[in-house]
Amino acid sequence: MTQRPTLVTVARAAGVSRQTVSNVINAPHLVSPETLELVRSILDDVGYRPNLAARQLRTGRSGNIGLRMRPSNDGINGAVLDGFLHALTEAAQAAGHRIVLFTAADDDDEVRGYRELLDTTNIDGFVLTDTHYGDSRTRWLSESGTAFVTFGRPWSSDSTPSPHSWVDVDGAAGTAAATSHLLSLGHTRIAFIGWPAGSGTGDERRAGWRRTMLDAHLPVEGLDRACADGIQDGSAAAADLLTTSDATAFVCASDSLALGALGSARRSPGVGVVGYDNTAVAAAVGMSSVAQPLELVARSVFDSLLAQLGPSPAAPVQQLVAPTLVARASSASLESADPRHAPFVGAP
Amino acid sequence: MTQRPTLVTVARAAGVSRQTVSNVINAPHLVSPETLELVRSILDDVGYRPNLAARQLRTGRSGNIGLRMRPSNDGINGAVLDGFLHALTEAAQAAGHRIVLFTAADDDDEVRGYRELLDTTNIDGFVLTDTHYGDSRTRWLSESGTAFVTFGRPWSSDSTPSPHSWVDVDGAAGTAAATSHLLSLGHTRIAFIGWPAGSGTGDERRAGWRRTMLDAHLPVEGLDRACADGIQDGSAAAADLLTTSDATAFVCASDSLALGALGSARRSPGVGVVGYDNTAVAAAVGMSSVAQPLELVARSVFDSLLAQLGPSPAAPVQQLVAPTLVARASSASLESADPRHAPFVGAP
Repeated sequence: MTQRPTLVTVARAAGVSRQTVSNVINAPHLVSPETLELVRSILDDVGYRPNLAARQLRTGRSGNIGLRMRPSNDGINGAVLDGFLHALTEAAQAAGHRIVLFTAADDDDEVRGYRELLDTTNIDGFVLTDTHYGDSRTRWLSESGTAFVTFGRPWSSDSTPSPHSWVDVDGAAGTAAATSHLLSLGHTRIAFIGWPAGSGTGDERRAGWRRTMLDAHLPVEGLDRACADGIQDGSAAAADLLTTSDATAFVCASDSLALGALGSARRSPGVGVVGYDNTAVAAAVGMSSVAQPLELVARSVFDSLLAQLGPSPAAPVQQLVAPTLVARASSASLESADPRHAPFVGAP
Repeated sequence: MTQRPTLVTVARAAGVSRQTVSNVINAPHLVSPETLELVRSILDDVGYRPNLAARQLRTGRSGNIGLRMRPSNDGINGAVLDGFLHALTEAAQAAGHRIVLFTAADDDDEVRGYRELLDTTNIDGFVLTDTHYGDSRTRWLSESGTAFVTFGRPWSSDSTPSPHSWVDVDGAAGTAAATSHLLSLGHTRIAFIGWPAGSGTGDERRAGWRRTMLDAHLPVEGLDRACADGIQDGSAAAADLLTTSDATAFVCASDSLALGALGSARRSPGVGVVGYDNTAVAAAVGMSSVAQPLELVARSVFDSLLAQLGPSPAAPVQQLVAPTLVARASSASLESADPRHAPFVGAP
């Protein structure tokens, strides 16, 4: 319709040089955060699209980034990875890049997926999710010299020969905020429902609760439950805690667990529940939850990957970002146990 | 670890020829549904992966399929497209194909996205979602000779020069099933909450409710509401219907609308609510909803696309599949208005 916007028109609107606009698109790590935000908002406003074919010829890069898509499970916990995929696709698109999706059965299969993509499709690099102890994927990518960034920190130092770029959310800070929030509402017998020990992510979330309780000189004995990650598991753990302990609140490692706990607590007014991941389900049932800043994570992951692809690759960047607590009715102040204000969950 | 499975080992396990296994992977439209299912389950079991590089050399095809990713909105209605993306990625992977994701602001921008992908990346074809009246995308793809399949029927015959392959879910059948279900529970004053007239999908869903009511010789006047697609909109429409009409049940065009209606109906025991899309939120709050068979749709979309890519392309295939009703507590029999069995939604 109208004239296609160019680097020059965007530069003029932003009051910066053409080279700065080019850096925003191709090498954002060279640009200050304020300028990045200003120029990106103008790029969005004018609907600027980089001329991909020309850039590909110039740089030898394809703009294709590989990502393994994981199952959506019960549609609740998978939602956080779907949200990350949306944010990553948008961050990539804004710089003229695309996400190439594949699936895999396990780590070894994911590595086979990398090989196949590198063999058959022009791929610049990979984004990995769900890092864990003994992760064989990062070692393979490092040794093959492939660019990659993980959403999730490396959980053991021995699996990867050299430090790599990662972005992660501080899960311990999230459950610490959830615990402090329940303390401020008058709860002192606050239980934790999480996963069995041994997963980095799960252990972190348990540690945030535990540290906050001990710092407040409150007991944790008999208030810690580990189970599989499902609504029924959370419901069973909460029902058990309500009968075997005097717990009045639950901090949960996921919204699935918290939703189950909320169901078990519905006949006990004043019991507080906080979930993790702030899914659409949490919002719909009025459940407090810890929110991961997925847009910030996706943008940082993409920028870190791009920084590795330029003519003078940047050093690896490690970034731990803070989650935020979204408080809703399920936090349930211990004093005001008015059932009209309590959230409810129907029988599934 | 173990020997990599080959076409021959899979054929032996299935008791079919090597060519049949090859057809299952590369030309599934040539294989009977029973054989397809048998061979695919064996391919899954043994973790067979086609040798992509060799096939790409042989066929000149890349195995890359482009798809525009849409925003997730409130995380409820966007969930159905996320579910479709999961199913499509898995169907594609099973035949050694991948999904290349991009985003776009509107139809024109999506067409620019096609051009850029075709210019810069080896793409075999596209999958389109959200077909609508005056859709310019299918015309462009048809005229450029690009292979594509739509999830969604063409809503006007004049926009595309020739018939193309599509798979759609029969939305009218879905709301008809929802209405019949509420009738069977004793409701006769059943209202519809949907979108303004003019969207093909929305009009179909309204038509299924209307036809079922008229077939039962029941009135529809004053029971039809149109609004934007959000929780607040559904809540306002239901509150208005509860005060201005004697409606006792709501059939809704989406789970977002139904969730809002459920909130407005929480102080009116016995009011029935049925949503559409059977999202995780519907399951979590005990809300009845119409489920689209996304795995079947994704597999059919992928098979139809593959049928266009072979050496002797198949004729376009049009496929309308039936949704199913998932009944939960929110259907609320008019007779047994026991609040202990009613689902509840907390204040957001």
